[in-house]
Parts: sequence; structure tokens; C-alpha cells
Amino acid sequence: MIDRLSDYKGLIEKEISNLQLPNSPENLYEPLRYFLQIGGKRMRPILALLSAELFGTKKEIALKAAMCVELFHNFSLIHDDIMDEAPLRRGQETVHQKWNTNIGILSGDALLIEACKQLSYYPAEQFKTLTQLFNKTAIEVCEGQQMDMDFETRENVSKEEYLEMIKLKTAVLLGCSLQMGAITANASQSDQQKIYEFGVNLGIAFQLQDDILDAFGDDQTGKQVGGDIIANKKTYLLISALDQANTTQKTQLFSALSITNNSEKVKAVLAIFEELDIQGKSKKMMAHFHDLALKNLNEISIEKNSKTALLALADFLFQRQY
Amino acid sequence: MIDRLSDYKGLIEKEISNLQLPNSPENLYEPLRYFLQIGGKRMRPILALLSAELFGTKKEIALKAAMCVELFHNFSLIHDDIMDEAPLRRGQETVHQKWNTNIGILSGDALLIEACKQLSYYPAEQFKTLTQLFNKTAIEVCEGQQMDMDFETRENVSKEEYLEMIKLKTAVLLGCSLQMGAITANASQSDQQKIYEFGVNLGIAFQLQDDILDAFGDDQTGKQVGGDIIANKKTYLLISALDQANTTQKTQLFSALSITNNSEKVKAVLAIFEELDIQGKSKKMMAHFHDLALKNLNEISIEKNSKTALLALADFLFQRQY
Repeated sequence: MIDRLSDYKGLIEKEISNLQLPNSPENLYEPLRYFLQIGGKRMRPILALLSAELFGTKKEIALKAAMCVELFHNFSLIHDDIMDEAPLRRGQETVHQKWNTNIGILSGDALLIEACKQLSYYPAEQFKTLTQLFNKTAIEVCEGQQMDMDFETRENVSKEEYLEMIKLKTAVLLGCSLQMGAITANASQSDQQKIYEFGVNLGIAFQLQDDILDAFGDDQTGKQVGGDIIANKKTYLLISALDQANTTQKTQLFSALSITNNSEKVKAVLAIFEELDIQGKSKKMMAHFHDLALKNLNEISIEKNSKTALLALADFLFQRQY
Repeated sequence: MIDRLSDYKGLIEKEISNLQLPNSPENLYEPLRYFLQIGGKRMRPILALLSAELFGTKKEIALKAAMCVELFHNFSLIHDDIMDEAPLRRGQETVHQKWNTNIGILSGDALLIEACKQLSYYPAEQFKTLTQLFNKTAIEVCEGQQMDMDFETRENVSKEEYLEMIKLKTAVLLGCSLQMGAITANASQSDQQKIYEFGVNLGIAFQLQDDILDAFGDDQTGKQVGGDIIANKKTYLLISALDQANTTQKTQLFSALSITNNSEKVKAVLAIFEELDIQGKSKKMMAHFHDLALKNLNEISIEKNSKTALLALADFLFQRQY
């Protein structure tokens, strides 16, 4: 399985290093070359290749669509890093940090357009279908990012709003990646829709897992936990806790959130999470979306073995711990 | 002529007010509704409509392509205003000023994608041709903006570099607007190319006129002059002056540029411009590009009356003073 994934990844990395960006203006294109080689899991383009194969075409056919989603993802990271004032990304300086904010804005803009340009490889009908899906998804990702920013300053965020936000900000691009692969393989409309929904539901499950791991840790990696709690981040866990707490528990929670000593703060918040069984409830919600994804997968008209392989690969790719 | 232009403008304004942007997230879409109604001359979309009619189709056919270029233009203004830290645009608060920089970045991103989405109206083959032209142009506009920013901190900028910058930053979008109209009218490849070049050359002439008017004024409007000089902006005039000045004149020019009293500064710089006949030379360069545009126009396979009308309209639209 790891072999197969690293095969996909190799193809993507090669295509990225072959990407012909102009040399001039240097301040527009050098930041893009820099940022694209920082790397990452290349999860989205791998999903596109995987989906193309699943529907019976060569992975190479989906390569330009895969590049489109990867470049788009990197565009969104460059602009998000400016908005979050993040100095580092994957341990390396962010674009606005290494150059400046204006260069971050403008080179991000250029990368968004470069992403669209990748689709020119496809004949007109496929080009239109792919571009329309891309535009729809790209706008949704912007909406998700705006909701996320809005949530920072809002007092009350409902679980439904949070789920909608992570769907738009993260999950739809995973669905889009899979559907793009399916489009390049000329899959049926119905299969396209199902693989899209599979990706969206799996993406929501994946994001919920991220929230859970940040609070309760991961025995395998031993990664330090509590970053979201320290940052008062409105995760699914905190939103659920605020939703379910009685008046006393709510007071305790707010008082825990105001503790200045980080390890004490994490401990106090986790104690309330435990009292309310936030971990169990969140895992249940995560399992709900994973089940939905499975249901989508079952409805796709491909043979069972391929489905099992896809789910295994996707779960591995998402480093599923649950 | 004014009637015809206001007819086009009315159509654009109506289409803009009918643009169906979602209500939520409010912080993403409200800034766009606000910025789009600030207005402007709508020069680019008018060119698209005009071109469609010129090549024998109804202007309504080109309306979505016209919207595409207008939305793109507004996207570029929103992001440029952030980069230039401009508080006002057409006398109204800029988006980042009225909301904040993050909202300016993100709503700008959304507007760029909304611009692409407009082209979905066209059948697949036209959609692909239009989208590819759009992507090429959009990247060039980013390149032009980056060159413009780079010039601010560079000591030496050649006239050729400056002309390339204004071509990319301003002129190619005018050419693109005209070519888009031609594409919707199924004009021949050769006519498409000619009308594009007509727009680009006219756009360069237009931008040079802007530089000239800022320094030497406009008897008709009586607009206050010298803004570019006060801001030490590297216009075609200043670049030409630095290029042609001898050692003594260069020293005088630098000393004039360092005067802190604005009206004295403008007066001193203009004196050197006069000594070097910068106005005459710049007007000559402007006329050169206007002549090139005329040549492009002459090669287009439409009847002579239409050509004369197009040039008259374009010159009027650009408020040609020369």
C-alpha cells in the first residue's frame, strides 16, 4: 500500500518539479517555486490519480487535474498564512514571512490562476466540466475560510455551523479531487457524485479526527497535545462542550479557559471534556461521517475489491487512528 | 456617441446589480456588493460589448464575458489597494479600509473566481477559448503589478521595462476585453488577434497619456497636476528624463526631487522636463502606439465605417486629449 502511494507521490513530485513557471518577475515566481518544493503529503492530487485509476483510466490522464488541486491548495495556504500571521509552514518560513505580505498576496493570486491553467490539457467538454467543478469548490473554500475567521470573534458557534465550516474549508476540496479524477476517466454522473460525496464525508471525519487527536493525543506518535485548547480554538470539542455543559460546568469551562499556565489549562479543560464525555461523542460524530463515506462508496458501480482498496488507501492517507 | 456608450454602460450596470452573490458569509460577499456598486467607467466590459457588435453579433451575447473582465478588474483593484495601502478608491473607502486586510484578501480571491464563473454561460468550445485567454491575461496582470511594485525600490528602470510593465498591468486586459467580444461573435482567429493588439496598443497610449496629463495638466478639466512628481513615481516622463539627462541635469533632477515643498518641487521638476522636451517626446511615443493601434484596426476584416466608429468610441472612452 505504501509502495502504491509513494508511486503516486513520485509522479506528483516530478510533475511539480517540471512545472514551467517563468523566471521573471522573480518576486512573483520565486516564492511559488520555493513554496511548492516545501512539500507536504500531496494528499489531494494523490486522490485525483487514485480515482482516475479506480474508474479505469491511466493515472497519467489525471495528472493535470491533480496538479490543479495541488496548486490551488498551495494558493490557499499562502493566503491563509498571511491571514493567520503564521511565520512557519511545515517548519519552513511562510511566503509573506520570507518575502513580504504584498508578495504573498500577489504570488498567491498568480498561483490560483496557474491552478486553473493546468486544466487546459483537457478537451473542451472535459475542460468545462472540470473548470466548473473547480470554480464551485474554490469559492466554497473561500467561504469556509471566511466562516473560520468569523468564528474566532463570535461567542456562539453551533455544531452544525462548525461542521459546515470544515466541510467548506477542507472537505469539499477532497471531494473535488476525487471527482476530477473520475471526470478524466469519463465516469458516469452518478459515480462522479458518489465519489465526490465519499471524499467530502471522509474529509469531515478526517477533520474531526484532527480535533480529537489535538486534545486527547495519539499513542502512536506521542505528539504533544492541547495546542487547540491553549489557543482557545473553537474546535468541535469545545463547541460540543459549551453546547452540553450545564450552568456550573459552563462557568468551570470559562474559568479553565482563562488559566494562564498552559499545562494547567489543558488539564482543567480536559477534565471538563471528560465529565461531558466529549471524546466519546466526538468519536461518534466522526464515525457517523466515516459511515456516510462508506455508504457513498458502496453505491459506486465499481467492483468490491477496488472499493476496499480505495478505502484502505484513503484511510491510510488520512492516517486514520480511529 | 455618448448615447451609445451610456446604452452599453446601462446594460453592464443592470447586469452587475442582478449579480446573484450569496448572502452568507456576509463578510465575504458584502464587501463585494459594496465595491461593485462604487462604480467606475466600466471601460473594459463596454469594450467587450462593442467588439461583439463590431463582429456582427448582439451585444447581449457578450454580456457574461463583459462581466468576467469587469469582475476581474475589480478583484485586481481590491488587492492592489491593499498593496498600495490606499484608503480611498473613487472617493469611497477601499475594502481593506472599511473592513480589514484579511477580508480584502479573501473577498478579492472570491471575486477572481466569480469572474471565471461568468464564462460558464458559453458552450464548451467557446468556454475553453475564453477561459484560456482570461487565464493568460490574468497572470500577465499579476506580472505587471509585481513589476510596478519592483520598480518602486529600483534605481534604474529602462523605458522598455516601463512600457512592458504598463502593457501587462493595464493594456492586455483592454485587449482581452475586445478579443473576448470577438470570440463570442465567432470572429476569425486573425481578426481576434488584430482586435486584441488594437486594444493593447491603445491601452499603452492611454497609460502614457495618463502620465503626461498628470504632469502637464489638461486644459479642459483644469485638474490639479503634479501628483506623480510629488510621489516620486517612476512614470514614463521621469524615466525618460533620467535616461536623457546629462550629468548636470541629472544632479539638478535629483535635487529637484528632494525638495520638500510640493509646489516648488513640481515647478523645479517640470523645468527640467521642459529643458529635455519630455512632453514632446512622450507625446511622440504615445502617438506611436496610437498609430500601431490604427494599423491593427485597418487590418481587421470589417467595413470601414465600423472601424471609424470603433476608434471614435475607444478614443472617447479613453478621454483622449491628444
